[in-house]
Amino acid sequence: MDGAVGGLKGCLKVRGSQIRHLLEAKDTFLFDCDGVLWHGEKAVPGAPGVVNTLIGRGKRVFFVTNNSTRPRENYVHKFYRLGFTDVRREQIFSSSYCSAVYLRDVARVRGQVFVIGGKGIRDELREAGVPFLQEEEQERRLDVDGQPQPDATIFNCDLSADVKAVLVGHDDQFTFLKLAKASCYLKDPDCLFLATDNDPWHPLKDGRILPGSGCLTAALEVATGRKATVIGKPSRFMFECISSQFSGVDPAQCLMVGDRLETDMLFGSNCGLDTMLTLTGVSQMEDAEVYSKSERSTEQSFVPDYVVDSIADFLPAFEELD
Amino acid sequence: MDGAVGGLKGCLKVRGSQIRHLLEAKDTFLFDCDGVLWHGEKAVPGAPGVVNTLIGRGKRVFFVTNNSTRPRENYVHKFYRLGFTDVRREQIFSSSYCSAVYLRDVARVRGQVFVIGGKGIRDELREAGVPFLQEEEQERRLDVDGQPQPDATIFNCDLSADVKAVLVGHDDQFTFLKLAKASCYLKDPDCLFLATDNDPWHPLKDGRILPGSGCLTAALEVATGRKATVIGKPSRFMFECISSQFSGVDPAQCLMVGDRLETDMLFGSNCGLDTMLTLTGVSQMEDAEVYSKSERSTEQSFVPDYVVDSIADFLPAFEELD
Repeated sequence: MDGAVGGLKGCLKVRGSQIRHLLEAKDTFLFDCDGVLWHGEKAVPGAPGVVNTLIGRGKRVFFVTNNSTRPRENYVHKFYRLGFTDVRREQIFSSSYCSAVYLRDVARVRGQVFVIGGKGIRDELREAGVPFLQEEEQERRLDVDGQPQPDATIFNCDLSADVKAVLVGHDDQFTFLKLAKASCYLKDPDCLFLATDNDPWHPLKDGRILPGSGCLTAALEVATGRKATVIGKPSRFMFECISSQFSGVDPAQCLMVGDRLETDMLFGSNCGLDTMLTLTGVSQMEDAEVYSKSERSTEQSFVPDYVVDSIADFLPAFEELD
Repeated sequence: MDGAVGGLKGCLKVRGSQIRHLLEAKDTFLFDCDGVLWHGEKAVPGAPGVVNTLIGRGKRVFFVTNNSTRPRENYVHKFYRLGFTDVRREQIFSSSYCSAVYLRDVARVRGQVFVIGGKGIRDELREAGVPFLQEEEQERRLDVDGQPQPDATIFNCDLSADVKAVLVGHDDQFTFLKLAKASCYLKDPDCLFLATDNDPWHPLKDGRILPGSGCLTAALEVATGRKATVIGKPSRFMFECISSQFSGVDPAQCLMVGDRLETDMLFGSNCGLDTMLTLTGVSQMEDAEVYSKSERSTEQSFVPDYVVDSIADFLPAFEELD
């Protein structure tokens, strides 16, 4: 099937038989989660049926999420609770899990990790056997007798000599002191600077927004004059994780489905995957069309090959296949 | 006197008679404070004598500092305590004072200001009569009975409908919640986005660093996709403040003395002032020479006209003048 069918390169709105062709052509489906499968604690209508059916038909299904706040075990429960009953932990590639894999297998970091982030990150590091500073260790300040003191500041706080990496992810307990400590650790050029993802913000109900970990990383990049290595989408690393754990994953046989052009579609493009935008999340058709008219090659990489209103649009195609 | 004397344009290391010529040629001296006049609570040796003598000889002396943590009244005490005995409040143009002036006289903001920052900013806003959300108002979360509740998050906190500007400065009590609230306020394109300064970091003792407010601004810029209007150096606004309050300030008669190429020298250049780097602070001669060889015009604007080891080098020149 050719992404150019129907006019412009990319942005092809697909339905019925076109989706059926895609389902026949691909053996591996990668899904982003927030905005694609669910919004908070509410599944996108039809999404559980789509995922369950794909798995039931023997397709390979993976979940690639920049959301670092949950350990994978917790994701399995969430999938189940929302009706995605057949998802196993091994299919889930979250930015916190992949960050732990990177620190253990790629960077092989010797020493401790200073974490800006929450439970999802700490649980994954613990399970991967990557040593990190516990929160209470991160916060302590020692007095002259070596006793912990409250009201630590960057002027008086304890800094560990053993920190060899700083990992930044979503952290709703982010403070100035964490930023300052991380900045001090990163003065050592041998201290690794890693970010789970670079997402700028996430939509909340009532028009509010939740700053993403890209904000915290940007703050630290300004303080240190360094650039973080980003693990999550659009970096290729999540796909490399999948390929290293599952044999025979062929990019030409994969479809990447997501709701955010600048992360999901670019990730697919970076990994050589066909891409599909679903309009149940952040990006809309107009955003994709603006990029498709751009002459910048980066922005061209944001353009999805295919577009659906919702992944529920897969359901009629399954019926046609029956 | 010609900055080209001695070879390359700029970076002219000046001593004795060259400094004497400068003292004769200029009637107005602008000094940065941290790293130029003092380090923390310790005056740069000789600096108080230089400033006192300039004032005593009838030169106009102004202080332009991006440090927003003190109100001007507090600066007057610090100057006096460190031996700068003749400095009056009217000579001090701090980024917090100038931000208050901007909000009152230029933006003429109607509504309240949401402050990311400390006492220096709040005191200056109060004195300028610019309404701002009190810290306790900023932090509160209301329950169904309208009673304040602890543990506010961006999901449940109260947001004021009356916020028409966000002002970001140095804030050692910065939290994720402040970032998130400011991001929500700035979704309104009519809400002004102001930063006291864009300093990336400040040196501390023991090789530690203090993240500057440029870090916090960067975080908010990523969250909102907006750019802040910056009040402090290198923006011209501080010089415009001086010019509006003192008649006859002629850029050609001014010398800007600072320790940071990317803020102080660029500020001088932006305002059409001759510039002098003092080597008692952040930037060193080698940094200036790297910029002087750059072909980028911005980086050329970082190059000082003159360089001294310390402003104490003015002292022998005064003796020659006697």
